[in-house]
Amino acid sequence: MQRLRVAPPSRAYDVLVGRGALDELGAAVAALGTSGQVVVCSDGHVAPLYLERVGAGLRAAGFEISHIVIPPGEGQKTLARVEEAYGVLYERGIGRGDTVVALGGGVVGDLFGYVAATYQRGLRLVQAPTTLLAQVDAGVGGKTGVDFRAGKNHVGAFYQPWLVVVDPDVLRTLPVRELRSGAAEVVKYGLMAGGRLLDEVEAAAQNGALDAERFDEALIAGCLEEKIAVVEDDEREETGNRAVLNLGHTVGHAVEAAGGFSRFTHGEAVALGLRAALRLSVELCGLPQSEADRGAALLDALGLPAHAAGLDPEEVAGLIRRDKKAGPEGVAYVLLEGLGRPRTGLRVPSDLEREVVAWLTSE
Amino acid sequence: MQRLRVAPPSRAYDVLVGRGALDELGAAVAALGTSGQVVVCSDGHVAPLYLERVGAGLRAAGFEISHIVIPPGEGQKTLARVEEAYGVLYERGIGRGDTVVALGGGVVGDLFGYVAATYQRGLRLVQAPTTLLAQVDAGVGGKTGVDFRAGKNHVGAFYQPWLVVVDPDVLRTLPVRELRSGAAEVVKYGLMAGGRLLDEVEAAAQNGALDAERFDEALIAGCLEEKIAVVEDDEREETGNRAVLNLGHTVGHAVEAAGGFSRFTHGEAVALGLRAALRLSVELCGLPQSEADRGAALLDALGLPAHAAGLDPEEVAGLIRRDKKAGPEGVAYVLLEGLGRPRTGLRVPSDLEREVVAWLTSE
Repeated sequence: MQRLRVAPPSRAYDVLVGRGALDELGAAVAALGTSGQVVVCSDGHVAPLYLERVGAGLRAAGFEISHIVIPPGEGQKTLARVEEAYGVLYERGIGRGDTVVALGGGVVGDLFGYVAATYQRGLRLVQAPTTLLAQVDAGVGGKTGVDFRAGKNHVGAFYQPWLVVVDPDVLRTLPVRELRSGAAEVVKYGLMAGGRLLDEVEAAAQNGALDAERFDEALIAGCLEEKIAVVEDDEREETGNRAVLNLGHTVGHAVEAAGGFSRFTHGEAVALGLRAALRLSVELCGLPQSEADRGAALLDALGLPAHAAGLDPEEVAGLIRRDKKAGPEGVAYVLLEGLGRPRTGLRVPSDLEREVVAWLTSE
Repeated sequence: MQRLRVAPPSRAYDVLVGRGALDELGAAVAALGTSGQVVVCSDGHVAPLYLERVGAGLRAAGFEISHIVIPPGEGQKTLARVEEAYGVLYERGIGRGDTVVALGGGVVGDLFGYVAATYQRGLRLVQAPTTLLAQVDAGVGGKTGVDFRAGKNHVGAFYQPWLVVVDPDVLRTLPVRELRSGAAEVVKYGLMAGGRLLDEVEAAAQNGALDAERFDEALIAGCLEEKIAVVEDDEREETGNRAVLNLGHTVGHAVEAAGGFSRFTHGEAVALGLRAALRLSVELCGLPQSEADRGAALLDALGLPAHAAGLDPEEVAGLIRRDKKAGPEGVAYVLLEGLGRPRTGLRVPSDLEREVVAWLTSE
């Protein structure tokens, strides 16, 4: 079991990474000095698989537990669900010293993380991510939130958890498409970090260590170390340094939205965004073509999509311009000067942006 | 014009205190390096008096401005109003670099502070408190939130502003009852700090420097300095040190709730809570009776209520036990070992609690 430390300004906490970590959750929460109630929050996919196990560990550690289970899907990330959860917490008399465990993928973590961030100005929060995407990325770093109108995560808070528990064993029950989708974020960290992490991701893609049955937990820890360094440096996206995590996400978010959040998973959209970023990096940042090809080959090896055929390029370009992170001077891209050498805050000429979007959306 | 610095872990900012500070607001926001849109949020009492003036200053500083005006009253602190405000921000294309100015009393500051805290995970927030209560207390320190069911501020966030602008001139337009209500918080800071601040509050109560027309701005700054020290020490109520600000509020909140949030203003309820705290301090903490009398005399001199006659003592006692800040061992009181020597985390035997509540609620 690995224990990684995250120490951003607002609160320091541990990330437990390892097979069987879910069975340690109860004891780990008790070790925080927490007493009182624990509300385990999950969704209709994950709860039948893991809720009982997590609950048993918490009960064994002496906690009074209850749960909230929502239907699965991004469509649940609404203010209405947040308010419903407040109502449940209110009726159960949950207070500041009590704990919310978010057991599930990104939707569960974002939604119940936000509930924990805002109920009574902050309950104790434990993230127990169960998708690869959430394990390598969303579960750590304190971003919580829900969608508002067409705005993904348009309402939210930066709120660090008290503890994160990452158990790669649960990836066995993840649908293949979800696992592949998470692999896109793993590739992102590989491209950002370069060096050994990128080598390891490539090796894993070749030798099957990215398969659910024998997923290499060191790879998850490697991605998390990258993420942790960035979060510690710029917890609230104020200095601009956290923007580096946005590699592939500027175009990715637009592709995801243009596909109605259903045609492409987040990870598939990020893979497409990474392909756009690699190409733009060659054009604008001096990324050698051979390195861009190496990145693209890794995405190919993982079976991630190469084209967002059938999307309307005008719509995608319009959505890029509406990016939440756009500053007064427009959308800022993260590109690569080399593998392992990301650069933030870059402007892309609009004709080049259109050209790359046209290429992505062609057959 | 005084400029106080607040530097809690999450973000450092200035508090501008002085007559005419409202006219400096536009330039002060520009000095933060902000560009983009500014949304001035206010209520039906304050907007007709000061919105135009604040807007003119912002326009002169080069900002594009718009506003949101809600009806006055605590009844507005709802999730429905929050969601309505998100909708307005969404339609205006407000983003991370844009600014919300909360121009009003505690309700406006809490509600729009919360909107700013949570829209896109945090807009730039300027607090421009216009009641004495908000000027000496709520405007600084980062507490934002709305009511949920019977729970006051049950949904909220700790979110520090970028700037606070305190203009004592605006107290001239404050109803007398509101001014007196704010004076209760001034007394709280006097009792907490003792020494020179308490002397100054007493002198002000005698010589009319607490009157709206010639309100002593040094007194506001004195209270704020006390508050700032506490907020810097324990921004998120995690170490327990911030609890000291709760002096008078444990019983005060219960009295306020038992009066249906209409019979007593927050400050009147706090004055009653301070009277209870003084008496309990004599019984439990060795506060000399003469010092308790000195505190009570100050509340008397300001015309603050001495009894919450007519409230149901059982209801008040029940509401005390439901206190949001109650820990696993029950409600923790802040009492005084001496004037200027508060002590936190104290338990009050339930028979004594009942006795004091009975005394407070008698004729």
